[in-house]
Amino acid sequence: MTAPAPSYYKHHIFFCLNERTNGEVSCGPHGARGMYERCKARVKELGLAGPGGVRVNQAGCMNRCQGGPVCVVYPEAVWYTWVDAEDIDEIVESHLKNGQVVQRLLTPPHLGR
Amino acid sequence: MTAPAPSYYKHHIFFCLNERTNGEVSCGPHGARGMYERCKARVKELGLAGPGGVRVNQAGCMNRCQGGPVCVVYPEAVWYTWVDAEDIDEIVESHLKNGQVVQRLLTPPHLGR
Repeated sequence: MTAPAPSYYKHHIFFCLNERTNGEVSCGPHGARGMYERCKARVKELGLAGPGGVRVNQAGCMNRCQGGPVCVVYPEAVWYTWVDAEDIDEIVESHLKNGQVVQRLLTPPHLGR
Repeated sequence: MTAPAPSYYKHHIFFCLNERTNGEVSCGPHGARGMYERCKARVKELGLAGPGGVRVNQAGCMNRCQGGPVCVVYPEAVWYTWVDAEDIDEIVESHLKNGQVVQRLLTPPHLGR
């Protein structure tokens, strides 16, 4: 299916901030909110934010908890499993700024909930 | 840029559930949570949910408030402005089930925050 117009955002990145309280793994307890905020601030500093550029978004559970903490970049549908702030900075610099996928952080394709 | 693998979800739809309290327009007060839940339930009933299928997600502000209430379907980057439950049902049936964009609900391209 072809989109009727170019993507409103060149890169739209969603961070799962979900916190489960039933003992199942989830992204929130890994510090997801802080990493979302770091990503958003860095994108703004670099002047990448806005229509035709980058949007950094918070999201609920994206059901890939076993690969968490995760974020996903659309429209290219690239999923990342991040560990720390350095990973976030690399995603911003390499992918969101320069369009290069960070291979070492890709979520293994078989990991779902 | 080419994704390194097929999109994990065929259609990943995000609903803005943001509620502003500063007087600016936002999606939440239009009943976004209920519509998100309706969409999610319907997708599940139709057997569309899961990897390779559809994921219905809640999200924070996607900064297209003037076009709200909005949802966006990725990886095809199609934005919708919905009004009521019939609109949601049409998005599910036409787009998420049959891959046909619902032209009448497309968010006007110039509408941002």
